[in-house]
Amino acid sequence: MNIEIINIGDELLIGQVVNTNASWMGEQLSLAGFKVHQFTIIGDTREHILEALWRAGERSEVVLISGGIGPTKDDITKTTLCDFFGTRLVFNEEAYKDVEALFARRGYAVTELNRQQAYMPEECLSIVNNFGTARGMWFEKDIPVPGRQGKTIYVSMPGVPFEMQAMMKDYIIPELTTRFHPNSIYHKTIMTQGIGESFLAQIIEEWENNLPQSIKLAYLPQPGMVRLRLSGTGDDETSVHALVEEEANKLSLLIPEYIYGTDDDRLEALVGKLLKEKNCSLATAESCTGGYIAHLITSVPGSSAYFKGSIIAYDNDVKEQMLGVMPETLEEFGAVSAEVVIEMAIGAQSNLNVDYVISISGIAGPEGGTKDKPVGTTWIAIATPEEVFSKQYLFGDSRDRNIRRAALQALNLLRKNLLSH
Amino acid sequence: MNIEIINIGDELLIGQVVNTNASWMGEQLSLAGFKVHQFTIIGDTREHILEALWRAGERSEVVLISGGIGPTKDDITKTTLCDFFGTRLVFNEEAYKDVEALFARRGYAVTELNRQQAYMPEECLSIVNNFGTARGMWFEKDIPVPGRQGKTIYVSMPGVPFEMQAMMKDYIIPELTTRFHPNSIYHKTIMTQGIGESFLAQIIEEWENNLPQSIKLAYLPQPGMVRLRLSGTGDDETSVHALVEEEANKLSLLIPEYIYGTDDDRLEALVGKLLKEKNCSLATAESCTGGYIAHLITSVPGSSAYFKGSIIAYDNDVKEQMLGVMPETLEEFGAVSAEVVIEMAIGAQSNLNVDYVISISGIAGPEGGTKDKPVGTTWIAIATPEEVFSKQYLFGDSRDRNIRRAALQALNLLRKNLLSH
Repeated sequence: MNIEIINIGDELLIGQVVNTNASWMGEQLSLAGFKVHQFTIIGDTREHILEALWRAGERSEVVLISGGIGPTKDDITKTTLCDFFGTRLVFNEEAYKDVEALFARRGYAVTELNRQQAYMPEECLSIVNNFGTARGMWFEKDIPVPGRQGKTIYVSMPGVPFEMQAMMKDYIIPELTTRFHPNSIYHKTIMTQGIGESFLAQIIEEWENNLPQSIKLAYLPQPGMVRLRLSGTGDDETSVHALVEEEANKLSLLIPEYIYGTDDDRLEALVGKLLKEKNCSLATAESCTGGYIAHLITSVPGSSAYFKGSIIAYDNDVKEQMLGVMPETLEEFGAVSAEVVIEMAIGAQSNLNVDYVISISGIAGPEGGTKDKPVGTTWIAIATPEEVFSKQYLFGDSRDRNIRRAALQALNLLRKNLLSH
Repeated sequence: MNIEIINIGDELLIGQVVNTNASWMGEQLSLAGFKVHQFTIIGDTREHILEALWRAGERSEVVLISGGIGPTKDDITKTTLCDFFGTRLVFNEEAYKDVEALFARRGYAVTELNRQQAYMPEECLSIVNNFGTARGMWFEKDIPVPGRQGKTIYVSMPGVPFEMQAMMKDYIIPELTTRFHPNSIYHKTIMTQGIGESFLAQIIEEWENNLPQSIKLAYLPQPGMVRLRLSGTGDDETSVHALVEEEANKLSLLIPEYIYGTDDDRLEALVGKLLKEKNCSLATAESCTGGYIAHLITSVPGSSAYFKGSIIAYDNDVKEQMLGVMPETLEEFGAVSAEVVIEMAIGAQSNLNVDYVISISGIAGPEGGTKDKPVGTTWIAIATPEEVFSKQYLFGDSRDRNIRRAALQALNLLRKNLLSH
């Protein structure tokens, strides 16, 4: 059984609004075990809405529609739905009472525009909207498709995200689940850092080729990380779950050094959790990342429990005066060197009185590269209560991506050290 | 002339990735004067891709496709395109040289998987990818549609946003513009900071109601700023241009104190430009923003010319030791106070030896609020060669948004000071 989604609204096509409704609906339906076949995004145009309704119904048994049912002139979906289903708008007392009650709660009188929202298609089941004036509409229609059993379901919802979301959760997904008993589906995402998509693919090729047919693998690359998502489907929830976990375990054994977590894990939060467990504190001493590592760390609520602060030493004077880097070290080895990041780390550990320090110095670009140290050259040091060590990396050409990749690499270096001690 | 967009990727359908490619493409095409007719989002399935290609070609003269052309097994778009256009993959020397060069820059050998990316459909014009290994593909095909003149254009691009964006900007939009001469369209975006959408709408209501029919206004809110975009269309480029500029000037006179720039202006870059003109240096002393202001400043290429560094004083010890904030000041007024941000600013100015300092301390949330100082309470100080001043703000409940709003507010305060001295 396939589900399709149609989002209606000119503002979506001109990119004025990012279509988060589609991704939210897709995610919730997938989590409930349904297969989402297509999203179709169209403008507020009668003929185009009619065509999209037909095409979707030909491909899929259930069509969910959002948008275009507000009170303003450009919202033509409701009358178009009447045409499509061969029905007409009639005044719905119950719907009107809801609108009245909503306006009373907000302290307003009902406007004529909003009164018109109580007119509903005669041949539909209307769905209560607890957060707005536009009710949902559940239609069923015979669509002539070979092999299709029963009527095709069309549900129209408001485009306002929290109104649509409440309707989906409270009514539509439970009702679809009762009717269709979807297959069990289980997703697990393995988060990797420090290796590119194609290198990863080579290492895990044999495992990937031998995956059971019921499990799909997706590579989801982002700057500095690749997420590997396993999705398993089947009749029996327990065995689907077990099979995906088994394959995830096999995968983990192939690339242990690149995996930092699963699903929604973020490196900055994992590092924070480990520091809290050890009751240890952290600081950063950043040059090329310019505060981005500190920003990631402090984006985690509660990070003040372990993060004390940073010295952002963009200028060499600041490296010397606030971190105690020796002028001779800068002179002899240059700012982007093992020697300098080590002195930065030790300086921050002592001056900020912390257990752990991430220090970093590199050439983010676009300027500043040389033959020996091209743009992307980056040194990272980690100071711990026991030792200080450093590593060199060569990232790419793009300033934004270099900053992001360097920050994730540095956080993962610290995470690995915290885990192994 | 209509343009359609097809985004391919299972990850889009299950909501793991929000489809920002669609909105970005829709926006750029609209800005160039094209009409976007539909977005279609489908999974990595051969039959479905073929169907979507046909349907889109029947509705629209140009079909832009993103996603599914990476090196991994789940990426089947390229072979499916060969089937659709009745062509085959052949090894492309030029494409291979690009892949080799990219890998050489990164210091890696080309893998077999990436070598395969140099196989391109024989019957297409391949488009250089300056940021990745998957080239774009420009196809033309006769699609039998009544009234359609010439061939229908299909262009396939990578799904990685910055690779797709570069291809669109550098090649595809200019080429489409040359071929189709869309209506003259002229956009001007007024960037505002420090005022919400609905307050702004009230102030400019009368002006908005009197806008000429050929000019449309869009409110584009983001955390901490609202962009006001004026779009004018018409036959004559010069008069469209003049009319939009005239209305933009009227608008500027209504809200001068909230406007910091136009179009792609970024506060962090404007501040940098002013500092360079004055030959002055900058540092930040950040508590609640945790390095985010420094990150914004250093995201600008060449910022090392004026930015010396930061003290991120998340912990009060760091405020005392690295910025010289007095323990008594912290004790008496609390870390989120005028007195503390002023001492932070003076301390950073002296310790980092700079002309200007932004200092900031606030309660980003979700914890840490009190009755007197709820979450969102933020103090900002600016130290200049002549003075130090501070201001209090109350932002909202969301940690991420508070950090963003505080950073933009602080940068704008400094910008206004730099302009007025």
